[in-house]
Amino acid sequence: MRLQEHRSNNSTKHAAPFLLSPSEAQAVASIRRLGPLSRTEIAETIGYSRSKITSVVNVLTHANILKEIGDGTSSGGRRPRVLDFNADFGYVVGVDLGATSVDLAVANFGGQILHRESLESDVRDGPDATLGLIGRYLLENLAHMGISPDKVYAFGIGVPGPVEFSTGLLIAPPIMPGWEAYPIHSYIQESFPSTICIVDNDVNVMAMGELRAGAGIEEENFIFIKIGTGIGAGIVSNGEVYRGSNGSAGDIGHICADPSGPICHCGNIGCLEAIAAGPPIAARGIEAARQGNSPILAKYLKANNGTLTAEDIGFAAAEGDPAANELIQESGRIIGEVLASLVNFYNPSLILIGGGVSKIGHQFLASIRRGVLHRSLPLSTRHLRIDTSLMGSDAGITGAITLALEHVFVVSE
Amino acid sequence: MRLQEHRSNNSTKHAAPFLLSPSEAQAVASIRRLGPLSRTEIAETIGYSRSKITSVVNVLTHANILKEIGDGTSSGGRRPRVLDFNADFGYVVGVDLGATSVDLAVANFGGQILHRESLESDVRDGPDATLGLIGRYLLENLAHMGISPDKVYAFGIGVPGPVEFSTGLLIAPPIMPGWEAYPIHSYIQESFPSTICIVDNDVNVMAMGELRAGAGIEEENFIFIKIGTGIGAGIVSNGEVYRGSNGSAGDIGHICADPSGPICHCGNIGCLEAIAAGPPIAARGIEAARQGNSPILAKYLKANNGTLTAEDIGFAAAEGDPAANELIQESGRIIGEVLASLVNFYNPSLILIGGGVSKIGHQFLASIRRGVLHRSLPLSTRHLRIDTSLMGSDAGITGAITLALEHVFVVSE
Repeated sequence: MRLQEHRSNNSTKHAAPFLLSPSEAQAVASIRRLGPLSRTEIAETIGYSRSKITSVVNVLTHANILKEIGDGTSSGGRRPRVLDFNADFGYVVGVDLGATSVDLAVANFGGQILHRESLESDVRDGPDATLGLIGRYLLENLAHMGISPDKVYAFGIGVPGPVEFSTGLLIAPPIMPGWEAYPIHSYIQESFPSTICIVDNDVNVMAMGELRAGAGIEEENFIFIKIGTGIGAGIVSNGEVYRGSNGSAGDIGHICADPSGPICHCGNIGCLEAIAAGPPIAARGIEAARQGNSPILAKYLKANNGTLTAEDIGFAAAEGDPAANELIQESGRIIGEVLASLVNFYNPSLILIGGGVSKIGHQFLASIRRGVLHRSLPLSTRHLRIDTSLMGSDAGITGAITLALEHVFVVSE
Repeated sequence: MRLQEHRSNNSTKHAAPFLLSPSEAQAVASIRRLGPLSRTEIAETIGYSRSKITSVVNVLTHANILKEIGDGTSSGGRRPRVLDFNADFGYVVGVDLGATSVDLAVANFGGQILHRESLESDVRDGPDATLGLIGRYLLENLAHMGISPDKVYAFGIGVPGPVEFSTGLLIAPPIMPGWEAYPIHSYIQESFPSTICIVDNDVNVMAMGELRAGAGIEEENFIFIKIGTGIGAGIVSNGEVYRGSNGSAGDIGHICADPSGPICHCGNIGCLEAIAAGPPIAARGIEAARQGNSPILAKYLKANNGTLTAEDIGFAAAEGDPAANELIQESGRIIGEVLASLVNFYNPSLILIGGGVSKIGHQFLASIRRGVLHRSLPLSTRHLRIDTSLMGSDAGITGAITLALEHVFVVSE
């Protein structure tokens, strides 16, 4: 184990603060995944000899990364000592950046969240304003917690735009003016000199949260779909988040769902998110209300000063409004049909539906399921579950913390 | 290393004839990928100590799996001995089963193909007839080659239908009557008692061939598309063939390409392969000829006794026939639009187009490229190459041999 001099951003092999040998990294990862373990359990988990693990553990305890805690269960004889993270050796920050809010969390090296907050912040104000707010808030609260900014070793940051994962830079983000190729890590490092920053697309980060702590914990291959202002997917392949060759995998919002559909903000026709994301659902609700097709939606429209959200359509459907129900079913069906293509291609065992619009009512999930089953091959749907995410906004913040923790230790070549 | 008693099919962990420890398996895999290596090079490649590798190599040479050959290049001092497979320790068979033909190859443990043949055989005759033919042909030719059937340790078999990879069984194959859940491995083992059988979908096998010996050799994430009687995809994720949760990943032929398109044999409307595979291209060529829209196609139709193949449409296009050219461009465009959705989702660095219809003319590839670029996001296509496969039928047989070689040694837990 050695502490690196140079600190940088995202996933280059030499960017992490702590470079571990392969066996050290495997020992750390086994405790990260399974919790406190004895030396014998570590040896069994990663397939090295007991003597090799003894020397690996000596390095890691000497470096203060691991420490012995209490006694483990014994299979007979002397009770073995159990190893866990030296939780307060260092800290990480998780940031889940939304269009109009920032969720923040501080966790220790043991993965325990010590502080969590949600701030109002408009991503359109640009990176200096947004990151400045985050930095000031964190410095103030870390001071209250008695944690030096020097002890923050990794930021995991989910952003609502396309990220080139190898560099951690946003590439042509449609709803984030001023963020294109902005060096987020340099800004953060001014206040947190010991840290690396791992920047990833927000939906990938949510998929990471579901993979390590949610419904994806037992799944090798699944897709997390976020339906909100836009529509995106986070892909898990063989138990790891899959980002594709440029980091843009999962960008399903601009798949053509209807060649005779509306024009999307991207300039193409009939994109999935131009038809079935929150804003078009709301717009069609407003239209139904104005055309007199829905007294309940008209009531909401009046109460909301001439606007509606997708959530309002959900409320109206819950009150039994047929127009709202039809709208929700139609959106679900279209999403389901696009997902059917992806199911044929990718054959996942699970699709998790998250994001604000996922809570629009049970008809939505039912229609997505019908759409998928209607157009997928029988073998592909044999063991396929399609469910609403239960983690909610926890998926993003948990994923961001996980992203930070999994990159703070990196294997040396 | 130990020789297993029990021999079985496909990828269960305990099915391979030779169970290796993790370090033995890594040493074998490094020589498989990189060619002959010295002990020091093996140690550097897989990150173990030189002394550990010395004992690993002793086990493998003692078991006759590896042997020392000539002298390697030296970095100074005594020239190191180089290790390679003991090629004639054992043999594998690759089988690429098509609708009306079987490609067969016998290779040694070094991966060298010793014999190769293509036999006419209709897969619709059922498994007993097809496998009987393969078995008799192999037994006869192995006898000529002086190889005992006992020395064949693995069959890699690509089949034109959906395979549940964990069991090696075909599931509801549309063009293979009688093959559903047929125990291919049991049949093969009657004549080849030492062998395991790894059965996989033919397109996955072709992707494997491209990954190890073709255009995919440097690619982490790519898609191989076979366009012939049907349309399917083989997916490579992080340098490995990705089969999904049931082994049906890549089944893209039944993605909806046109909601107002023709009815497919699967019962759905507008499936990609009902519009853009060989048979519908040929059918539209016949229609154009009959309606007097193409004198050149009419000439081919007459010469072929009232039928045309997709290849004929290619010939007519090469002769400058506008109707044939339009047909090819239209098919390419539709395939390209479906691929655009998959590019947005999967963000591959390479799409390889193979199968008989891929040779229909340069307009076909150009139209596929245009279709993809038209509907994909800029970040996803930034480094995307779309090319015709150059391996041709070699992809299938090379992939089948590779599949066998990579499964004959399996890591023990």
